[in-house]
Amino acid sequence: MKAYRYTMGSTLDELALVDLPDPIAGPGQVLLRMRAASLNYRDLLVVQGRYPRGQLDVISPLSDGCGEVVAVGEGVDRFAVGDSAIPLFFQSWLRGPMLDSDGESALGGSLDGVAAQYRVFDADKVIRAPRNLNFAQAATLPCAALTAWNGLHGPRPLVAGETLLTLGTGGVSTFALQFAHAAGARVIVTSSSDEKLAKARALGADCTINYREHPEWSAKVREFTNGRGADHVIETGGGGTMLESVRSTARNGWIHVIGLVAPGQIDPVHVLLAGVTLRGTEVGSREMFEAMNRSIEKSRIEPLVDRVFEFEELPAALRYLEQASHFGKVVIRI
Amino acid sequence: MKAYRYTMGSTLDELALVDLPDPIAGPGQVLLRMRAASLNYRDLLVVQGRYPRGQLDVISPLSDGCGEVVAVGEGVDRFAVGDSAIPLFFQSWLRGPMLDSDGESALGGSLDGVAAQYRVFDADKVIRAPRNLNFAQAATLPCAALTAWNGLHGPRPLVAGETLLTLGTGGVSTFALQFAHAAGARVIVTSSSDEKLAKARALGADCTINYREHPEWSAKVREFTNGRGADHVIETGGGGTMLESVRSTARNGWIHVIGLVAPGQIDPVHVLLAGVTLRGTEVGSREMFEAMNRSIEKSRIEPLVDRVFEFEELPAALRYLEQASHFGKVVIRI
Amino acid sequence: MKAYRYTMGSTLDELALVDLPDPIAGPGQVLLRMRAASLNYRDLLVVQGRYPRGQLDVISPLSDGCGEVVAVGEGVDRFAVGDSAIPLFFQSWLRGPMLDSDGESALGGSLDGVAAQYRVFDADKVIRAPRNLNFAQAATLPCAALTAWNGLHGPRPLVAGETLLTLGTGGVSTFALQFAHAAGARVIVTSSSDEKLAKARALGADCTINYREHPEWSAKVREFTNGRGADHVIETGGGGTMLESVRSTARNGWIHVIGLVAPGQIDPVHVLLAGVTLRGTEVGSREMFEAMNRSIEKSRIEPLVDRVFEFEELPAALRYLEQASHFGKVVIRI
Amino acid sequence: MKAYRYTMGSTLDELALVDLPDPIAGPGQVLLRMRAASLNYRDLLVVQGRYPRGQLDVISPLSDGCGEVVAVGEGVDRFAVGDSAIPLFFQSWLRGPMLDSDGESALGGSLDGVAAQYRVFDADKVIRAPRNLNFAQAATLPCAALTAWNGLHGPRPLVAGETLLTLGTGGVSTFALQFAHAAGARVIVTSSSDEKLAKARALGADCTINYREHPEWSAKVREFTNGRGADHVIETGGGGTMLESVRSTARNGWIHVIGLVAPGQIDPVHVLLAGVTLRGTEVGSREMFEAMNRSIEKSRIEPLVDRVFEFEELPAALRYLEQASHFGKVVIRI
Repeated sequence: MKAYRYTMGSTLDELALVDLPDPIAGPGQVLLRMRAASLNYRDLLVVQGRYPRGQLDVISPLSDGCGEVVAVGEGVDRFAVGDSAIPLFFQSWLRGPMLDSDGESALGGSLDGVAAQYRVFDADKVIRAPRNLNFAQAATLPCAALTAWNGLHGPRPLVAGETLLTLGTGGVSTFALQFAHAAGARVIVTSSSDEKLAKARALGADCTINYREHPEWSAKVREFTNGRGADHVIETGGGGTMLESVRSTARNGWIHVIGLVAPGQIDPVHVLLAGVTLRGTEVGSREMFEAMNRSIEKSRIEPLVDRVFEFEELPAALRYLEQASHFGKVVIRI
Repeated sequence: MKAYRYTMGSTLDELALVDLPDPIAGPGQVLLRMRAASLNYRDLLVVQGRYPRGQLDVISPLSDGCGEVVAVGEGVDRFAVGDSAIPLFFQSWLRGPMLDSDGESALGGSLDGVAAQYRVFDADKVIRAPRNLNFAQAATLPCAALTAWNGLHGPRPLVAGETLLTLGTGGVSTFALQFAHAAGARVIVTSSSDEKLAKARALGADCTINYREHPEWSAKVREFTNGRGADHVIETGGGGTMLESVRSTARNGWIHVIGLVAPGQIDPVHVLLAGVTLRGTEVGSREMFEAMNRSIEKSRIEPLVDRVFEFEELPAALRYLEQASHFGKVVIRI
Repeated sequence: MKAYRYTMGSTLDELALVDLPDPIAGPGQVLLRMRAASLNYRDLLVVQGRYPRGQLDVISPLSDGCGEVVAVGEGVDRFAVGDSAIPLFFQSWLRGPMLDSDGESALGGSLDGVAAQYRVFDADKVIRAPRNLNFAQAATLPCAALTAWNGLHGPRPLVAGETLLTLGTGGVSTFALQFAHAAGARVIVTSSSDEKLAKARALGADCTINYREHPEWSAKVREFTNGRGADHVIETGGGGTMLESVRSTARNGWIHVIGLVAPGQIDPVHVLLAGVTLRGTEVGSREMFEAMNRSIEKSRIEPLVDRVFEFEELPAALRYLEQASHFGKVVIRI
Repeated sequence: MKAYRYTMGSTLDELALVDLPDPIAGPGQVLLRMRAASLNYRDLLVVQGRYPRGQLDVISPLSDGCGEVVAVGEGVDRFAVGDSAIPLFFQSWLRGPMLDSDGESALGGSLDGVAAQYRVFDADKVIRAPRNLNFAQAATLPCAALTAWNGLHGPRPLVAGETLLTLGTGGVSTFALQFAHAAGARVIVTSSSDEKLAKARALGADCTINYREHPEWSAKVREFTNGRGADHVIETGGGGTMLESVRSTARNGWIHVIGLVAPGQIDPVHVLLAGVTLRGTEVGSREMFEAMNRSIEKSRIEPLVDRVFEFEELPAALRYLEQASHFGKVVIRI
């Protein structure tokens, strides 16, 4: 079979398909014929040797994919040949709160990823794809969608009628918009692009704010919420946006800290005076993934696919991602 | 002004309109011109002298109503003349968990109710009506709707994609159906009437079960949920339906114990073996009412009004309620 | 090595030691030289063929034990030779809420138990013993202690200053008393034996009630709590004690449904009127076990050992348990 | 009666006792003969005109006090003459989560405080003093103790066996140490003074760290917790200590943001990578106060009183507080 291999220290140009032996499903395992993968920014960091967490010296990149079960090992009853299946981002995080050790089980980082024609997984570390999604759509879920879900439906679940604020229209923010809309919440979206804001409204956003026009966008959030502020914020920015996020948040509201893209710092006294809670939000467990899929199926939520590349075009797809002009996920057909 | 008066020991036939002095809004109070009221079974118990909780010897019945603010007392800034406003069922329960003492502040039971042309309330014990509802619709919310909301979004909030089971199509069950549907949950409804089940489907029910045809309806619930069971049950039956309700509930699921209509008993060992939680569910606080109204406005939820009677027809309306052929709330125009 | 073997259909008298091959630790496994085991009532049901859950046809009984690690398989870093280690009651329940499937992984029921000189376990299904306990004490924890912990510190954690009511002085109740005392809570204990109540006071009980003298013991609980009632009840009785338990519980308090010994039924209307929550409480996860052990070490809690039998005396020990005259756990030295 | 009066714009030297008419208890009110008050840093800010929140132009300072009920108004049944009673810090926050509007009801800031011989309060805004405390001790509770309690037993309650880290030995930190010790938790205390650390150990601290000797004290916290980190941090520092606090906290642990004394900023990416939660923590509600008092009574917790000044010495007491050499609360006898 063919698989991508990245060796630490090499460049993105040197990322190449290699021939590897076909893997075999051992006891308790499933063999997946990978059918699609999707890209996240962290994959770009991996193939540039800049990933801030653990990374193998030689690795198949990409965490997010969906495949078809083509063989099951002894003792497997969770899957049958022909099922569509998605491997977990954190292979060891099945349920309950995250452990430090789960951080060392990330696909396409600590473990070989899904940029391969075949991959073997422990059957309990793979989840069935939502019935309403095709391979390309299902491949977008493991990282960005589950992070959004963990934020919205983690220890402080979003309730119908509450207000969510999402920053920008990246993967996590857009999934959060779709999930919150399906959950009967009101959604406010910020962006610097009126075109992207129009797309957000088409997905269900109730209020959109161009932060170029309104650099102090918290005032608009307060206005839209009759002064209350947002109950949840999916904070995909970082220190650079955090003060406006705190100002946008209702007393007792939660800010889900996800972002790295807007560097900066904040004085915690703002957290105190506003009476808000900030939570560092990781991807999520298998249990959360199962709950998310039930909502995707019930509300027929369809992930946005911006563009599909062929398997041989992975380097080009990563460069396209780097340009950040997409709205929705960039997918690889395998 | 005119108001109904019930004296303990008299019959429903003796319930009559009397002339009373017009009330005046003191400091911190509002004067409401009541415009509509709605009926609950407990009101029937009250005017038959059979209410199991505290009841005044002489009382204006009915807990649920909506009026127009016609005067505000000194120091009131929560309301202005012309606002549509709804008094709280439990006048003293503003936020946080219920106290025993709140039970003694129920309108139309421990305190004079809304079956009157004018009523004065403390401004902080009245809530603004949802903007999308007329007086008749808004008058249906204080008891049944808020009980349903407290069940669904209390200590164990309903999450999008989860499954709710409601028993029957009474007021609490129908509000629960509408709220859960708006929150992106799947809803299963039971009834003995195919006609009522068809109406439930029109309101968004995903699965309906005629319990006459399927006396062991838990099997159907398990079937519809791929064996998992329901995550939430709005248990408006009682001991007579509880065992089937427990059998219908997923491990770690919650049963909201509300009902009195199906007498019976249950061996708690079933609760243990099923790994479920039963919670005695009361009406709700002002804080919950505000959250509920935000969902009603966001999702444009419209309470079902079965039939509207004139103010003078309250006894007839109560008798109509007693027949239990309605679907939706019975309303009095005042 | 020697191990006990029970064959479904045989009697307790036929329970006998047999010779079996010494087990070997495979990859990811540890080999334990079992040093002590403790008995629970469910073990008695198992060796009488009356266990209400899944049970192997031929089985080594007993779920609770502690051993010494004498070999570790490839890739094991959680344990080293010489560690004291305790296998989990539910082998598959590591963290998060219980799944239905966990119920099929109980030692000495669905899986071979610890009544053996040597046993092999997956390293992640075994937990280190608290440092302050010897083998006999540590062997008492897996079932009764963890059930008590799950009740007290589950979804509605006990807070310092709250009041716990425990029924009787069996294993779960006594552990609950010790844990709650260490957590700064007040504890009320019921029993029919003044001698046992005196022992409970020595362990920290703040109030004791002889239920023979006070068959309506809820009145005493209300008296001791200035009318509020208990915040938590460890309900080791069943339907026969439930009504008094509900009457003993404060509004918004929790009743942890554990018991099977007092058969009977209850009308759920009592749950509604009292505003209490009943939760079917299972044993617990590895995560809970780790948290419990931290409290045991911090507060130097020592499980009560009533009597120690030799390995060859298991049948006699089970008969001693059946007499129910013990206070504290019955232990087998292996 | 005599009361202190501060007029915005004047200096601490101009703070003086004035004669005012004796207040009278109206319906629903109680009249307190104030017997003791205690000082907080915010009181120093108030009498310097530097309080960052709302402050009356002319005000009696001090939020924390305890008095004797000397008269009760019509309809009051919560209190009787002779009771020891403590007014709430936030007069309008009775239960449930804090509202923005509660911030405008702080004694000795938005409302007249307790630096007076007599004060009248609504009976439901005053709480009974713990039975085991004298007036001076009870006067220390409303602000610092309740803030500590809200942190430890708020939305993420401290569990026995968990580890608390407190920064320094100020009022909130010392109460947190005492409450956590009573709750069976392990406590780590930091300070720059070995003398204060010795006092902290006498109060129950399990581990103390001199941050002068260990400027990167998070390493010591990790060492003491076998690498896990603390489960709760009472963060009375601010931006200047926050990074070390985050590094000291276990994954899924909570940092209660209380402090203003160590200015600085933090990049939120640390919150994300550590997987921790930061919560802006306000004082607390009456409901929390009642729960706290139950723990104080059960565990016979005695607040530390550093020094008692006479009523006429309030300016000197405030200057003594300013020097920050105390350990325990500074109290005024009235």
